[in-house]
Amino acid sequence: MATAPRIPSVGFIGLGVMGEPMAGHLAKAGHRLALFDARPRRAARLAARFGAAASAPHSPAEVARASDIVVTMVPDGQVVRELVTQPGGLLEGFAEGQLLLDTSSSEPWLTRETGARLAERGVAMVDAPVSGAQWGAQAAELVFMVGGAARDVARVRPLLDAMGKSVFHLGALGSGHAMKCLNNLVTAVNFLAVAEGLAIGTKQGLDPAVMTDVLNASTGMSWVSQTHVRQRILSRRFDDPFKLGLMVKDIGIASDLARESQLPVPVSGLVQQLWRAAAQGTPADASVSEIARWVERLTGVEIASPASA
Amino acid sequence: MATAPRIPSVGFIGLGVMGEPMAGHLAKAGHRLALFDARPRRAARLAARFGAAASAPHSPAEVARASDIVVTMVPDGQVVRELVTQPGGLLEGFAEGQLLLDTSSSEPWLTRETGARLAERGVAMVDAPVSGAQWGAQAAELVFMVGGAARDVARVRPLLDAMGKSVFHLGALGSGHAMKCLNNLVTAVNFLAVAEGLAIGTKQGLDPAVMTDVLNASTGMSWVSQTHVRQRILSRRFDDPFKLGLMVKDIGIASDLARESQLPVPVSGLVQQLWRAAAQGTPADASVSEIARWVERLTGVEIASPASA
Amino acid sequence: MATAPRIPSVGFIGLGVMGEPMAGHLAKAGHRLALFDARPRRAARLAARFGAAASAPHSPAEVARASDIVVTMVPDGQVVRELVTQPGGLLEGFAEGQLLLDTSSSEPWLTRETGARLAERGVAMVDAPVSGAQWGAQAAELVFMVGGAARDVARVRPLLDAMGKSVFHLGALGSGHAMKCLNNLVTAVNFLAVAEGLAIGTKQGLDPAVMTDVLNASTGMSWVSQTHVRQRILSRRFDDPFKLGLMVKDIGIASDLARESQLPVPVSGLVQQLWRAAAQGTPADASVSEIARWVERLTGVEIASPASA
Amino acid sequence: MATAPRIPSVGFIGLGVMGEPMAGHLAKAGHRLALFDARPRRAARLAARFGAAASAPHSPAEVARASDIVVTMVPDGQVVRELVTQPGGLLEGFAEGQLLLDTSSSEPWLTRETGARLAERGVAMVDAPVSGAQWGAQAAELVFMVGGAARDVARVRPLLDAMGKSVFHLGALGSGHAMKCLNNLVTAVNFLAVAEGLAIGTKQGLDPAVMTDVLNASTGMSWVSQTHVRQRILSRRFDDPFKLGLMVKDIGIASDLARESQLPVPVSGLVQQLWRAAAQGTPADASVSEIARWVERLTGVEIASPASA
Repeated sequence: MATAPRIPSVGFIGLGVMGEPMAGHLAKAGHRLALFDARPRRAARLAARFGAAASAPHSPAEVARASDIVVTMVPDGQVVRELVTQPGGLLEGFAEGQLLLDTSSSEPWLTRETGARLAERGVAMVDAPVSGAQWGAQAAELVFMVGGAARDVARVRPLLDAMGKSVFHLGALGSGHAMKCLNNLVTAVNFLAVAEGLAIGTKQGLDPAVMTDVLNASTGMSWVSQTHVRQRILSRRFDDPFKLGLMVKDIGIASDLARESQLPVPVSGLVQQLWRAAAQGTPADASVSEIARWVERLTGVEIASPASA
Repeated sequence: MATAPRIPSVGFIGLGVMGEPMAGHLAKAGHRLALFDARPRRAARLAARFGAAASAPHSPAEVARASDIVVTMVPDGQVVRELVTQPGGLLEGFAEGQLLLDTSSSEPWLTRETGARLAERGVAMVDAPVSGAQWGAQAAELVFMVGGAARDVARVRPLLDAMGKSVFHLGALGSGHAMKCLNNLVTAVNFLAVAEGLAIGTKQGLDPAVMTDVLNASTGMSWVSQTHVRQRILSRRFDDPFKLGLMVKDIGIASDLARESQLPVPVSGLVQQLWRAAAQGTPADASVSEIARWVERLTGVEIASPASA
Repeated sequence: MATAPRIPSVGFIGLGVMGEPMAGHLAKAGHRLALFDARPRRAARLAARFGAAASAPHSPAEVARASDIVVTMVPDGQVVRELVTQPGGLLEGFAEGQLLLDTSSSEPWLTRETGARLAERGVAMVDAPVSGAQWGAQAAELVFMVGGAARDVARVRPLLDAMGKSVFHLGALGSGHAMKCLNNLVTAVNFLAVAEGLAIGTKQGLDPAVMTDVLNASTGMSWVSQTHVRQRILSRRFDDPFKLGLMVKDIGIASDLARESQLPVPVSGLVQQLWRAAAQGTPADASVSEIARWVERLTGVEIASPASA
Repeated sequence: MATAPRIPSVGFIGLGVMGEPMAGHLAKAGHRLALFDARPRRAARLAARFGAAASAPHSPAEVARASDIVVTMVPDGQVVRELVTQPGGLLEGFAEGQLLLDTSSSEPWLTRETGARLAERGVAMVDAPVSGAQWGAQAAELVFMVGGAARDVARVRPLLDAMGKSVFHLGALGSGHAMKCLNNLVTAVNFLAVAEGLAIGTKQGLDPAVMTDVLNASTGMSWVSQTHVRQRILSRRFDDPFKLGLMVKDIGIASDLARESQLPVPVSGLVQQLWRAAAQGTPADASVSEIARWVERLTGVEIASPASA
């Protein structure tokens, strides 16, 4: 190829604590940006900050008209669907050959539905939810879980590389969103594994801090035992920033995927109920760490190190 | 202190694939050894190999008479109890002030029972089961999970350091044995978490190899996802050396500890039943990896990467 | 009241093994009938049999125009919704003040949705699914589980009395359909209770036939132990006419109701997974009795009386 | 046989609220009685009441010497074992050909152990725990669940007939005791089935009183739905005389039977944990009805009929 490929212009919709720094990395990488947010002044302010290469159109449709690729980072798949189908939405602006890259945490079936609507117009879609939270977004250290056709994923790859550190391509459209909640399902089970194990041992007089060290040095090790127990539980702070309500939502999505194919998953089925029980009577913004406190109430055992007392 | 402390002489009972290299490390560390095994020629051969500092007495009682500290590495707590109480057993040879260090994987209540028998004679006991298997025993890289009075643990500390790399003191006598099976209980739950999660995703068309990468890069990470899935499951080898039957036994012990204090542990309670179901109809020496094959049969999903096909 | 109330004319849609005898009882009770079925000749033949008081219009809309009350007895809530909203559907024929009585086994949320559509036109709706099967329909011995406003229920009461023996009014529209699947959820749990209990006892050498007698004479008694075990399981016939697939569907609806309100129901959550596992690998038309055979495979115990061998 | 068989003389040990009326029925049936109780004055008073045919020996050994058959009705299998083996116990008095009939609620393995001790002396044993409680004992309406050799069961049959209304012979020695806790296990599962079902429905706005009527008229019917729900739960009295602690104990025994044969019983395994959770924080003498209140707390739903409010 004789000429350098044109750097695609990008639309970015959803400029919250995640979207703003993500858009910033794209600006730095030289992409022309069309910004949109439910709060228009936010988009305008950010466009001003990014300089001549950035604009703040008045509707998703205009964003679509101004961009090769549109990125969304919004609360869920319902919002994505509305952005696409509403009057003045993306579908009105999109032309054949364009692409929607959804980095939100959407429900896989809504993603497939939205993808089908776009496909009728010849517009491609890739889902790429993230792990890494606000810090990862700022540091361009996000992990992307990606679903879509290989060709489409290749096309958004430079954008993902600009915003994160790892890109995992799991399968067809919707696979990224499926992976996101399956990872959380596995995490949710691991949480209960650790909490029950520590409760039994603590009741037997074992020091839960030392128990945690043993798990971490042995086969019982998990992200939960390594990163969560001492910091959030033994410290009695119960303050992981991930919300219990979002965990319950993700377990619900994972469970709906199992149901879709009528897969029997007994442990997941039970674990779903227990997280729901933990959500009963905790405030809406409770931390995921509260699951340990729920196990404490259930068993009557406080998982606290005698040393920390 | 003016004089160097005398290096204690050690009795070692149980010279199998674990005991033999462990005794070797003690010999190297300069301990005089009295060796005993249910197969007397094995003890004699090993004593000959260790040279003048080693002997092979004809009974546990004589081992006790010849040593300051006796180490046991035998199949389970029943065997330990018999070694102590049988005619010609340790109790007949022990004098006040001696110590039994049990590195076997015993049941905590048997350990406490045996410890109480020894205490009547003024003999101390420490339990210190290991993780690390044969390779760890050979390389002196064992991890010890220790239960006993602080003073007694301090006394055996140099022996443990000679045989392993980490020593975790969890609490009173029996705590090491409790920890061993609680670690396995947590592992057993994590196994089912990963297997169910991968089954749901695979059925949805996600590549389980990439799913495993995502878990390992995210909060779903565990020893199982990191060390087991690609090597044993996706490879279709199902060949972890740890036996499913021993896992079921350890889950059973952990569950008895919960029962002892009437602790409700719903996930553990269910997981115990599912591992039992996996043991139904698998050969007695089946690998722990078979739990994944059981989930495959239950769900009708083969957890295999399309790439590996 | 001086004049006898006019007997309402009734539309009846869905003339299968249930609908045909139900319509027959309404004819006998003196109702003028407008019959409709997806197979038009079926409706015509039946109208001919009922004589001058019966007609067989060509569309649901015409049925609505010809009747005061329309009764539906079709496969599920999707079909009811289509009958209402499709071109030529009930909505086109209904006038203010009419009423739809749905005796199908619909999903409660579809019922509420359809009811809301009808309410916009001033048409009332009552849900009244049945238990009692084909035999109950023929003998006018059906049990109706009813949801709807008290006034509307009163209005359909004579029809229900003509077709069945008991009428239970549970609450607002959709409550009948909710009850139907909740009854089946409870039944599904009871099934597993009995099967597991019998498996444990049989393995211990107890005679399952005598065990069943004891349950029936004691607190373990249930419809399952009383009506199902000897006839379907111990006889090794596994031939209850109710289908396992329908049970799984009803458990799924009940579970969705729990999810709607985020209620934690651990036993139901697990039981759902186990029935799904039983459905894995059984033919689509398998009997509900197969759950016992699934427990037999899981446990490796045949629940058979030595006497019956 | 030309001569009428001699009516056997009977020893009766344990004269509490159950034993006293049971012994009374045996006296009425013409048996000579030797009575014993941990409270000697109780035995003496009762012997006096029964007249010349009754005595109150000073030890179990003397009871054994004075009787053909000895009946025990004591708290559990530990007490039975002690009555047999203690100094002055039954073993000292029994001669070959005698028989012990244990109507207590013992653990099956203790029963088999005690039976083996007796068999060494040529003494037979039959286990025959009861259902029916105090009222059944007074009215001779007890239900006996019997384990033992057919010949031995035939021999005690007239005694059982004198004290109860039904006799079920389930299998070898210990089968009666196994049946007793298996019946309670099934009951325990049925309790949770009903409580969860009612909680879901009540939250949906269904009237739990009418729901109960539907269950009772349909396949969801059980002893729990028929006898317990209105009386104990909807009435908000939670006052079933059977104790939650005894239920937990019986579930534990049933679960140990499953474990003995490594049977996977997932529902029972979970249900055991949930009853344990209910026992956490309820007083030791709480009623079995409290399980419903526990489900209410778990779900946040009060299972109360609006009508009863």
